[in-house]
Amino acid sequence: MALVVQKYGGTSVAGAERIRAVARRVLARKDAGDSLVVVLSARAGDTDRLLTLAREMSPNPDPRELDVLLSTGEQITVALFCMAVKELGSEAVSMTGYQAGIITDGHYGDARISWIETLPVMEKINEGRIVVVAGFQGYDDGGNITTLGRGGSDTTAVALAAALGAQVCEIYTDVEGVFTTDPNIYGKARKLDKISYEEMLEMASMGAKVLHLRSVEFGMKYNVPILVCSSFTDATGTLVTEEDEEMEKVMVSGITYSKTEARITLTNVPDVPGMAARLFRPISEAGINVDLIVQGSGSIPGRANLSFTVPKPNYQETMQIAERVAKEIDAGVHSNPNVAKISVIGVGMRSHSGVATKMFEVLARENVNLKMISTSEIKISCVIDEKYTELAVRVLHDAFELDKAPGERITIKEAK
Amino acid sequence: MALVVQKYGGTSVAGAERIRAVARRVLARKDAGDSLVVVLSARAGDTDRLLTLAREMSPNPDPRELDVLLSTGEQITVALFCMAVKELGSEAVSMTGYQAGIITDGHYGDARISWIETLPVMEKINEGRIVVVAGFQGYDDGGNITTLGRGGSDTTAVALAAALGAQVCEIYTDVEGVFTTDPNIYGKARKLDKISYEEMLEMASMGAKVLHLRSVEFGMKYNVPILVCSSFTDATGTLVTEEDEEMEKVMVSGITYSKTEARITLTNVPDVPGMAARLFRPISEAGINVDLIVQGSGSIPGRANLSFTVPKPNYQETMQIAERVAKEIDAGVHSNPNVAKISVIGVGMRSHSGVATKMFEVLARENVNLKMISTSEIKISCVIDEKYTELAVRVLHDAFELDKAPGERITIKEAK
Repeated sequence: MALVVQKYGGTSVAGAERIRAVARRVLARKDAGDSLVVVLSARAGDTDRLLTLAREMSPNPDPRELDVLLSTGEQITVALFCMAVKELGSEAVSMTGYQAGIITDGHYGDARISWIETLPVMEKINEGRIVVVAGFQGYDDGGNITTLGRGGSDTTAVALAAALGAQVCEIYTDVEGVFTTDPNIYGKARKLDKISYEEMLEMASMGAKVLHLRSVEFGMKYNVPILVCSSFTDATGTLVTEEDEEMEKVMVSGITYSKTEARITLTNVPDVPGMAARLFRPISEAGINVDLIVQGSGSIPGRANLSFTVPKPNYQETMQIAERVAKEIDAGVHSNPNVAKISVIGVGMRSHSGVATKMFEVLARENVNLKMISTSEIKISCVIDEKYTELAVRVLHDAFELDKAPGERITIKEAK
Repeated sequence: MALVVQKYGGTSVAGAERIRAVARRVLARKDAGDSLVVVLSARAGDTDRLLTLAREMSPNPDPRELDVLLSTGEQITVALFCMAVKELGSEAVSMTGYQAGIITDGHYGDARISWIETLPVMEKINEGRIVVVAGFQGYDDGGNITTLGRGGSDTTAVALAAALGAQVCEIYTDVEGVFTTDPNIYGKARKLDKISYEEMLEMASMGAKVLHLRSVEFGMKYNVPILVCSSFTDATGTLVTEEDEEMEKVMVSGITYSKTEARITLTNVPDVPGMAARLFRPISEAGINVDLIVQGSGSIPGRANLSFTVPKPNYQETMQIAERVAKEIDAGVHSNPNVAKISVIGVGMRSHSGVATKMFEVLARENVNLKMISTSEIKISCVIDEKYTELAVRVLHDAFELDKAPGERITIKEAK
């Protein structure tokens, strides 16, 4: 008998029929002999409805009270779900974040779980009941209700799985798993059977909206296998787990893209210490997150070009800062708000060379100009013109044969 | 500086504008120097919406989970209200039943407050903040969420006022106070300035839907003055308080009516011990509440007539039981599902005689036949044909001069 944590997202519990369907799914699993902890999100649309109510009261609602308000969304779902389970003749008991002992720091709206008091949940499991926990919420040491930020129910589930020593944490959503790239962009995208935590982190931060970033970090830290699968089908899903030998043999696991950033370049920046700080301090003080930063030689000796990307909504404000700084240090500025970032991800890159070269060649062959390049151990990112995004995804997916099962690929032999 | 508990009902907080209006009202009171604890109900309609969701899951939803579900209604209101107060530049903090230390027994859906841990609320009051408590809810000693039944926010407010030693508990609703009778039935109904707890209990149980019965019991037990007033006007309201000399001088305080009961009579019941038990045991075992019971002589010597009233929805079922019992004991049965109960209420009756006589005379003058009569120290109830309800209310109201201020009445002189 295994202990399993399952999480169902908002679309999986939207409406009475969907809730009943999930209840039947959970009961089938219990009948098969497993103990179950079920974590639920708010019904799709409920959180937005609550946010609308809040904005009617204040353009900038008090963060503590916003968490009190938003946490009702999940409380409603867990109560309805338990009613459905009872109606099907089994025993379930709902728990709010507070009742389930989910203790967080005090950052309203974006709290982090500090620890979990597992006794209340374990007691109910030991009574043979299905424990149904409201996701996305906890409480701080002052007894105040907190929420974990959008998508935080994933984190609730993985953290509970870690704390309870569950065999697996299953995340049910409206997609069948993690794909080699966005299936909406390229029909040949293939569902991955397995992916490492690190790759998943890169995929998640690159905009593959399957798992909440922090939940993957939790999984990695406490080594909780996370199975991502659909609540609408019986397909197998994708297992997010520790890196293993098999994964290392696979050079590239996926291609991701992001169209949410704009690029700004300062040209001919004096190549003396402190120039980067002079630019980036006012930007970070304005609360703007800089993603990629690349510095290269400028056209004048002793001068450098400094390119970086920021989220598109911050583009105008960042440009004002950049132009002011450029004037002070006698540099030029140019920018492009219409760029995309394409990334090739794979833990196998650690032991394979030639991935970057192949990526550059493939994009060059299609006349896609690379505006910035950034590499890490398991990822190569290129910034390109936004209009080439879909083309780049397709040709890279083809070039690395991601539509084929890993064993059938013939690209690049191991070089080391 | 006084500590005041205020409670606002569902219509007072329905919609953003109403919530803002209540927030302004509360802030004005705070600016006048008082410390405030505000108890809120769910927004009008929210509880019904949640009940509909529950019934979609089960015709008979699990009581524990129903309380988890329903308690979100008040949690939403308190959060929105605090946002409004903050937006107006003052400090408020919301508390759920759990956070406010409202401890109840474990009767889901109809829990009774066992005690209140006042420290969390007092701490926040001492910080100078307006404390906003979700009404209608608490938690039992197993940490489960409970609710106090419909109208339970009144009880939350009065119980908190008692526990905190508040100077007064103000109940804001959509009527201006307690009236001598239902103003919808008789336009001459007059708002009472003051009423005793006992009278209010009789009024509440007779269907004057102003205050939750249990909240009045709490007020009486702990001697908390309760001011009932409108949140829509600045009218003075009605103070529910201890009986005083002034009240005793007033013979009759109000006339109430109820059309919710049916009358059943067993005729010529053998006048031997055990007959009443034989009839009422099966009725109570069926979960039916009998209200009035009157026994008198029957037409045959040694036989008696036994009349009683039950709620209209239980009429058919009760008739089946009555007919079965009547057959066994050789009695007759007749019934009338279309009756009303008219009551004259006043603590002054204790020291005045002649009220009953006057009531009977007034009704006789209008040819209203009395089918049952029941009296207590401060109340006389008559069961009459339902069609005479409004007429009876009007003529009694006139006869006891309830449209006049107590000092200006000339009816019946003190007899003792």
